[in-house]
Amino acid sequence: MSYNKVTEEDIKCLEEILDSDRVTIKENINEDYAHDELAELKVYPEVMVEPETTEEVSEIMKLASERNIPVTPRGTGTGLCGGAVAMEGGILLLTTAMDEIIEIDEENLTAKVQPGVILMSFAEKVNDLGFMYPPDPGEKSATLGGNVLTNAGGMRAVKYGVTRDYVLGMEIVLPNGEVINTGGKVVKNSSGYSIKDLMVSSEGTLGIVTEITLKLIPLPKKQLTLLIPFDSLDEAIDTVPEIINAKIVPTGIEFMEREVLLAATDYLGKGFPETSAPAYLLLTFYGNDNEELEKKYEAAADVCLDNDAYDVYIANTEERQDVIWDTRGALLEALKAVSHLDECDVVVPRNRVAEFVKYTHKLEEKHDLRIRSFGHAGDGNLHIYTLKDDLDEETWHERNKAVMDDMYAKAREMKGQVSGEHGIAYAKKEYLHEDIGKTQVELMKGIKEVFDPQNILNPGKTV
Amino acid sequence: MSYNKVTEEDIKCLEEILDSDRVTIKENINEDYAHDELAELKVYPEVMVEPETTEEVSEIMKLASERNIPVTPRGTGTGLCGGAVAMEGGILLLTTAMDEIIEIDEENLTAKVQPGVILMSFAEKVNDLGFMYPPDPGEKSATLGGNVLTNAGGMRAVKYGVTRDYVLGMEIVLPNGEVINTGGKVVKNSSGYSIKDLMVSSEGTLGIVTEITLKLIPLPKKQLTLLIPFDSLDEAIDTVPEIINAKIVPTGIEFMEREVLLAATDYLGKGFPETSAPAYLLLTFYGNDNEELEKKYEAAADVCLDNDAYDVYIANTEERQDVIWDTRGALLEALKAVSHLDECDVVVPRNRVAEFVKYTHKLEEKHDLRIRSFGHAGDGNLHIYTLKDDLDEETWHERNKAVMDDMYAKAREMKGQVSGEHGIAYAKKEYLHEDIGKTQVELMKGIKEVFDPQNILNPGKTV
Repeated sequence: MSYNKVTEEDIKCLEEILDSDRVTIKENINEDYAHDELAELKVYPEVMVEPETTEEVSEIMKLASERNIPVTPRGTGTGLCGGAVAMEGGILLLTTAMDEIIEIDEENLTAKVQPGVILMSFAEKVNDLGFMYPPDPGEKSATLGGNVLTNAGGMRAVKYGVTRDYVLGMEIVLPNGEVINTGGKVVKNSSGYSIKDLMVSSEGTLGIVTEITLKLIPLPKKQLTLLIPFDSLDEAIDTVPEIINAKIVPTGIEFMEREVLLAATDYLGKGFPETSAPAYLLLTFYGNDNEELEKKYEAAADVCLDNDAYDVYIANTEERQDVIWDTRGALLEALKAVSHLDECDVVVPRNRVAEFVKYTHKLEEKHDLRIRSFGHAGDGNLHIYTLKDDLDEETWHERNKAVMDDMYAKAREMKGQVSGEHGIAYAKKEYLHEDIGKTQVELMKGIKEVFDPQNILNPGKTV
Repeated sequence: MSYNKVTEEDIKCLEEILDSDRVTIKENINEDYAHDELAELKVYPEVMVEPETTEEVSEIMKLASERNIPVTPRGTGTGLCGGAVAMEGGILLLTTAMDEIIEIDEENLTAKVQPGVILMSFAEKVNDLGFMYPPDPGEKSATLGGNVLTNAGGMRAVKYGVTRDYVLGMEIVLPNGEVINTGGKVVKNSSGYSIKDLMVSSEGTLGIVTEITLKLIPLPKKQLTLLIPFDSLDEAIDTVPEIINAKIVPTGIEFMEREVLLAATDYLGKGFPETSAPAYLLLTFYGNDNEELEKKYEAAADVCLDNDAYDVYIANTEERQDVIWDTRGALLEALKAVSHLDECDVVVPRNRVAEFVKYTHKLEEKHDLRIRSFGHAGDGNLHIYTLKDDLDEETWHERNKAVMDDMYAKAREMKGQVSGEHGIAYAKKEYLHEDIGKTQVELMKGIKEVFDPQNILNPGKTV
């Protein structure tokens, strides 16, 4: 595909659509906007725009479509796969100025938001009103638009499911600037093909989501976290299927190793209740009263102790729980602070997580590359990080590629999926295509062409 | 589109793919297979086939594709919109012989089934093992394949969501006979466009689903139903937002009127705990112990009594609950037994259900046609039935069309959707297209063409 370059005339048009202070030309664009958290990929857009309304987005897309200029939508740029990088230059469309929580409808248990609303602010707002928005990805500074477009999962997926399960409706600006609405404040819908569900996890390649209707639930009144030390990571993870087998479904089940944990406490400069064991499970339980919670967590604690847990620490005050979850939330940042890294976000059947983690330990030796993992033991979604440390570029790329190839092959063998929640975008395209095969890639390309025949929206991503 | 007729040569090919006793030629096809529950539409297929395996389905589709013969998939034919009717003749592909529950995986909380498994048998099987498959449509003799392809909702959607939320993976035979797999035993997935979610609610127009991976949850140990009589339907339904406002989310909230209720008790020949009030709410609560349940239902009962409920009947034995829910399940059959009818399955925001039902009362007078409704007050999905009674054909069609036009216009005005769970298929196409507009219809047609360029799979449906 060849695109037109952004001309001075185009800039003028953009400045007419927006105020001129929401149009930034290349020379003035901060380096931050040339990449996301996939540090290796760096491309500057030719112009950056910050629309505030659907109408503005529509006008921008009409211009881009007429002039055949690529457009890359971007939230806060917390993605790990290059999804928000303007691969082909053109227009970078920031959604961060579209940050209004339009409505919280208590009778219908719904919220309507613009895509640039930050997850953290939204979660706080609905909590204050006595509701919960269950999706809870580690990266709280991501936008809700980004969460929807990658189908973010997070730490409560065991019990509550993923972002897709909470998206009821959308307003979408198509690549040609037309505006459509799909779904709404309705729990059920069987009205033709689900355009809404096609948009979820489409990583901004099919349309620009300009308004989202989300489902809320009443906020559970009590929360409780168990921190459970084990002798080894394998022992910890092997316990998870036992918990599920006992028909206990906690809100979340996370695992972490001591070394990663210590990096995080260092990084945060905070203490942690217990750091002596090689590995930990974190279990959370939500409920409406203490008795109910007690029954649940006691049953889970018994299973853990039967499976050789050292002990079970109960964090039942908000303060104690915050320490634990803030630390869990900082694991990735802490790893990034010590080394350049690459990541693998595969999801495998829950009862094969332990096997997968053991396999990464073997790969560590086989390819002589430091590998660390943590993640969502309860839903099978692993976050595995390869660390460059002080390797030279060439060795790092070589070893990293070998490790990644092996890991994705293993996930495929286990009938897992390439990405649990981070998406495909640029970085995982090769692995997705290997995984789903030519026929499905062709179907996806066909869908892309239906929505975006000029291929101007986030080109070079996903398919 | 013009298709080839099924020749004797084709029949021979089909008999080679299947045994000859699973191939039925037109002359021997029972009238039942010429229609579904939309009685008005009756078309005989040229041949009916009953594959048992994915390979057989694939071979049939290869033949159909080569020979340009239309194929209509069909489960037990319980649909209300003509989805399983072979509009263009050709091959009717029954999925009912693909009725194996392939696996129940207790560690991953998943089940793998063939599409012809009956909902009722599946629900019983998983209950016996201590699990629950939450979707609970009234029509228990439908197939799981049909449930998935219409995104069936049912009576537990308030708390547990709809079929889509429980579909984790699929094996699909494409119109050209190729077999693809999407999703799997994974809770999270962000691996490209969700082909799986495109299939859900596609009503057999994009591919034939030959295997489904479903999510299970542990079976709640206790269930309880409240039967709550009110002075009028409006009063009953007006209470629902109050329950939600009190941050109580029952498993299900149904409403019904005395007249429909009496028709059902007559139809079943069974008693009912209370039939003196003009209208009823039914509330169910699921939980793991009695105390937990008690708290929930007492709070809900208080709200109802504050809103002028006559009384609150508690059904806490299995027997008492069965009487109530069997009656609820028979409402449609009971109406059908007294009159020919047409139905409207709109879904509107939950807090506008009462307004919608009041509007249908006005339409009853305006168009002089008997209208009865019941349905899912808690999730906004109404089932509204127009009754022919002893009207002549012409008057019935005229009045019915006028009522339907008004109802769909009203739903559109309320930002509802054309179908909550019954689908579009043949009967609702006009209303869907009015509702979503030309642009979305074109997108859906584009998607259809990507999957089925020959338009041989279930032609004449949805788009």
